[in-house]
Amino acid sequence: MMNAPRGTQDLLPGVTEQWQYVEEKFKELCRTYNYKEIRTPIFEHTELFQRGVGDTTDIVQKEMYTFQDRGDRSLTLRPEGTASVVRAFVQHKLFGHATQPTKLFYAGPMFRYERPQQGRMRQFVQFGVEALGSANPAIDAEVISLAMSVYQQLGLRSLRLVINSLGDNESRTSHRNALIEHFEPHKEELCNDCQLRLEKNPLRVLDCKKDKDHPSMATAPSILDYLNDASRDYFEQVKQFLDQMNIAYVVDKNLVRGLDYYNHTAFEIMSDADGFGAITTLSGGGRYNGLVEDLGGPETPGIGFALSVERLLMALEAEKQSLPIDTNLECYVVTMGEKADQRATGLVYEMRQAGIQVDKDYQSKKMKGQFKTADRLKTKYVLVLGDNELAENNINVKDMTTGEQETVKLDNVITHIQQLITGGKV
Amino acid sequence: MMNAPRGTQDLLPGVTEQWQYVEEKFKELCRTYNYKEIRTPIFEHTELFQRGVGDTTDIVQKEMYTFQDRGDRSLTLRPEGTASVVRAFVQHKLFGHATQPTKLFYAGPMFRYERPQQGRMRQFVQFGVEALGSANPAIDAEVISLAMSVYQQLGLRSLRLVINSLGDNESRTSHRNALIEHFEPHKEELCNDCQLRLEKNPLRVLDCKKDKDHPSMATAPSILDYLNDASRDYFEQVKQFLDQMNIAYVVDKNLVRGLDYYNHTAFEIMSDADGFGAITTLSGGGRYNGLVEDLGGPETPGIGFALSVERLLMALEAEKQSLPIDTNLECYVVTMGEKADQRATGLVYEMRQAGIQVDKDYQSKKMKGQFKTADRLKTKYVLVLGDNELAENNINVKDMTTGEQETVKLDNVITHIQQLITGGKV
Repeated sequence: MMNAPRGTQDLLPGVTEQWQYVEEKFKELCRTYNYKEIRTPIFEHTELFQRGVGDTTDIVQKEMYTFQDRGDRSLTLRPEGTASVVRAFVQHKLFGHATQPTKLFYAGPMFRYERPQQGRMRQFVQFGVEALGSANPAIDAEVISLAMSVYQQLGLRSLRLVINSLGDNESRTSHRNALIEHFEPHKEELCNDCQLRLEKNPLRVLDCKKDKDHPSMATAPSILDYLNDASRDYFEQVKQFLDQMNIAYVVDKNLVRGLDYYNHTAFEIMSDADGFGAITTLSGGGRYNGLVEDLGGPETPGIGFALSVERLLMALEAEKQSLPIDTNLECYVVTMGEKADQRATGLVYEMRQAGIQVDKDYQSKKMKGQFKTADRLKTKYVLVLGDNELAENNINVKDMTTGEQETVKLDNVITHIQQLITGGKV
Repeated sequence: MMNAPRGTQDLLPGVTEQWQYVEEKFKELCRTYNYKEIRTPIFEHTELFQRGVGDTTDIVQKEMYTFQDRGDRSLTLRPEGTASVVRAFVQHKLFGHATQPTKLFYAGPMFRYERPQQGRMRQFVQFGVEALGSANPAIDAEVISLAMSVYQQLGLRSLRLVINSLGDNESRTSHRNALIEHFEPHKEELCNDCQLRLEKNPLRVLDCKKDKDHPSMATAPSILDYLNDASRDYFEQVKQFLDQMNIAYVVDKNLVRGLDYYNHTAFEIMSDADGFGAITTLSGGGRYNGLVEDLGGPETPGIGFALSVERLLMALEAEKQSLPIDTNLECYVVTMGEKADQRATGLVYEMRQAGIQVDKDYQSKKMKGQFKTADRLKTKYVLVLGDNELAENNINVKDMTTGEQETVKLDNVITHIQQLITGGKV
């Protein structure tokens, strides 16, 4: 007996409808914001993530599904979406298009080899957007507002938007030096990873899960104290635009995000719902000016975010928000007699061609059993066809909500049902 | 400079809309047929495909993306959808549900390491359905009719449905023995693969690309001559149901399909469109009674099909069928002055919240440049907001089709636009 691999899951009927629903919502929201879909491959050359996510990140160091293909290429299942989108942006020269910024969205599975727990699967689904080509703080606010809207439009209320600025290169360098100076005296007390991080990327130290309670953490210099004028002004403008939209936020100077490429705006959306679980982050994003250049393109600013669909659904459950999903079946054809059953196969086919949702029995069940199945499928209208009705070219239509029944000519039944379903409005 | 890995592709805006459109059509068709979505993981334990696709197939022997994960499991990117769906059916005991057959559909990427060519990518997308739990020939016809409908409803006309029967186990054994007897004298003339196939699974010889012109192929015994009464009767009934639905087909006794698990009904849909290309098969499927048992479940009949989305889109192009996709932008807000631009950010946000598709400038362009962008985005309504209008709480709305312009109160503009878009019907 074989199961799905550890850390992956099957989504079955009854659950997939929820995934479809939130996916539709996200796509509709992206439509109103004028973000267009991009689909990149499930795997990429490993080097892309080493360069595009960052060699010092946990993702690249510990969590990637990397393998050699039959042509001896090193490939990696994508652990996140941004590097692939930027790679495609460069490869297809989207920066050359007349209308900028290039506003893209994606929805699909990502892969990280981690210890599976609730809200953290090895294969998980992310929705995300990337806006490439504008360094206007208004687009930072646009991206944040889109992220917030996904949750709000699905009915979530216990949300917390946390923002920070990581500053531009100059600010980051000053901060970096301050961090090294601050942590150097405690170097030996920090974990091995952090000792390495202190050399390669001291910002990562603030993100360490092991050392998070070390006393030096609380007193570490904040990036906000090292922002130069331009960076401080940029951050102020982002906040002003959020105010324009009446979007509430809190500034958290310790928010640094787990990826190497962020600068200026960084943000996370958390769930404050009771019983949501240990991992409260629903989504995160930020600005990554410089990444397009790092991946071989021209100097191009960029900002984006990604959300976890698993955690979105967990948040809906924690807030007891049920999605308005209709799982009733429109029609079921019950037959009696062999001729009627044969004719029903043709009828069901014609109804489906006309856009009506309909099913019938394929298990040779008696009439009573067929009615039972129709009931289990929560059927709205049951059509009864016996050899007698067939001889007179009739069929009986039963409204399962009211119990009312009427006899209709077989030739008219499709029009009749269409009128019933649309409530007379065709 | 990095590109997408060989045999994979990026789908960009302008193209993704087509993929979305055919995906929606497929899902809507599955809804009318009462097939529900299942989503299985991108990778599975390698053993699943060895057992579920067949050890002697080209797929398993040459084309799988197989790798060890960090926990030393042998995993394989799924080369097709049926084995995973059946595995999930067994794992989650869907056979125990009160309503049978279990009717499932899927849509997602599959992976085979082959020489890339038009219509054959290493990562490709399949739509498919599986009906598990019924051995009624009417469900074979249902599955075939669904497959045909996908193409027909998208406007394709040059289609050819080819069907065959591979018979039940008894018939297959007789045929197998006849095949061995037939090919044995020519064994040395056949390719190495076929010599092995002759021992393990002689049916596969008929499917060989290398030996397809060997004289013994044309005279090979046909399965149709070895069908026992039950199998012949089953095939006749499938054909009768297709007749009931007015679905035309041709019987091809050489159709064997590339997977090991088929029996009884096998079918393929081909494109006869001029200039379609070398690979004319659009989709294929068949019955696989026994597969559920092979994968550890109870005796359960099953039938399904899968189609390639790439080839579907190629067929639409070959038949010059364009999809009715609207890429116009509903609204664009043009601003003049800093205050107006600030206010526009809030307005755009509110419009999007109200479901209106709208965009604005983030490149600090002058008014003329903004109008140019609106034009490039094929905008239907341009809203012009200057500091003067703002002072009077007004905004100008320009219909880009008629050129007509009117001044509207800022507070009413959302309702106004909604009425314009729906043509007065709200």
